[in-house]
Amino acid sequence: MNQKSFQDHYPENTAHCYGCGRMNEHGLQIKSYWDGAESVCEFLPRAFHTAIPGYVYGGLIASLLDCHATGTAAAAMYRAENRAMDSAPAFRFVTASLRVDFMKPTPIGVLLNVRARVKEIKGRKVIVECTLAANDQICARGEIVAVQMPENLANSKL
Amino acid sequence: MNQKSFQDHYPENTAHCYGCGRMNEHGLQIKSYWDGAESVCEFLPRAFHTAIPGYVYGGLIASLLDCHATGTAAAAMYRAENRAMDSAPAFRFVTASLRVDFMKPTPIGVLLNVRARVKEIKGRKVIVECTLAANDQICARGEIVAVQMPENLANSKL
Repeated sequence: MNQKSFQDHYPENTAHCYGCGRMNEHGLQIKSYWDGAESVCEFLPRAFHTAIPGYVYGGLIASLLDCHATGTAAAAMYRAENRAMDSAPAFRFVTASLRVDFMKPTPIGVLLNVRARVKEIKGRKVIVECTLAANDQICARGEIVAVQMPENLANSKL
Repeated sequence: MNQKSFQDHYPENTAHCYGCGRMNEHGLQIKSYWDGAESVCEFLPRAFHTAIPGYVYGGLIASLLDCHATGTAAAAMYRAENRAMDSAPAFRFVTASLRVDFMKPTPIGVLLNVRARVKEIKGRKVIVECTLAANDQICARGEIVAVQMPENLANSKL
């Protein structure tokens, strides 16, 4: 895709997340985009992201859902305010709670398709529902409660 | 600690997990032990396991709780059967669902203390409650539903 991802808009001081920070060279660097009312992120696990041989590690799945959901929460808030993602003040969310239901083992070696949809925006809190699919089959479902990052965290230094 | 960890007893064909497999050279290789009725795992995140600067990545926290809980589920089943962990048949669990509540940001750079306690054993299913603490403060709580790995997965090949 040639548009900028949600994560490409994160302010520099909050762009070091292992899951979604473009400035974390050791991290997953996921990229999320709108696809109509849903958001989408594609990710190809590496060979060592294994649970048992042949299947993707559940902690990676939780990580993908988590970061894709917090990115979606931020993007949804800009949409709700009818603002561009590079306009100030920046929205950046952290996770208050995360639930993942693993429906079936996720095969390794194929591109994973993570989708999210905002269930509710309530003040500084956004509830996001997600799915993770491989080969067009949903393997995991998640629900994330994301909250706007407190000011003291957003301003923390490296 | 000089005793073998739960994970040191995992059969070789299920010891490649990114979170807890002793044979995954790229993985976290967590180690869990009994401490009375609770189990404990200590882990020092690496500098790049960051969420926002100064704090630990939530996906890593979810991963630690998840793998420590499935290890605890296996260990608890051996205890329930009054069997040694190296006796056959081996117990190995996968995660059916995972819930994590992030109570406060987890500081990076200190040893994390992950503790678990079995809430319920029900057939092939074990429900495990966990906490993650840094500097003696609980930063996250989790509940994991672990189920005994289906035979076809336990016998999958690399």
